Amino acid sequence: MIKARITVTLKEGVLDPQGKAIEGSLSALGFKDVGSVRQGKVFDIELKGENKVEAEQSLNSMCAKLLSNTVIEDYRVAII
Amino acid sequence: MIKARITVTLKEGVLDPQGKAIEGSLSALGFKDVGSVRQGKVFDIELKGENKVEAEQSLNSMCAKLLSNTVIEDYRVAII
Repeated sequence: MIKARITVTLKEGVLDPQGKAIEGSLSALGFKDVGSVRQGKVFDIELKGENKVEAEQSLNSMCAKLLSNTVIEDYRVAII
Repeated sequence: MIKARITVTLKEGVLDPQGKAIEGSLSALGFKDVGSVRQGKVFDIELKGENKVEAEQSLNSMCAKLLSNTVIEDYRVAII
């Protein structure tokens, strides 16, 4: 069993309305030292098998095909 | 300026319908070796100031008050 964490974040320069909303809420809650907030996603995936090289290829393929929108998002695969 | 990454994930045992849907989609796309998928959130936050201890307290407080639902979610604060 291989465990991996995929982190998907918006590319720099891409507008993040959700992050902006959180910035506003944090400021309204009294957190005045918040500069910027950007929101992203994580996927914790368990894969059958023990071949880490194959797993990494498979995970990269999952990101390209389903888990991220590569036009506006970056992804990072980490085998844990 | 302090940069931090907050990772919010569902606690073990909490049902994750979004993760289940992704599992189904990955399987339909031909990724047959996927065991389980759990989805979470990341927040990349920039804080003014240089005091890492204060920043970490502030970030923990943000998680408890706004960024996570501590009944069903765990959070992890990492200063980068």
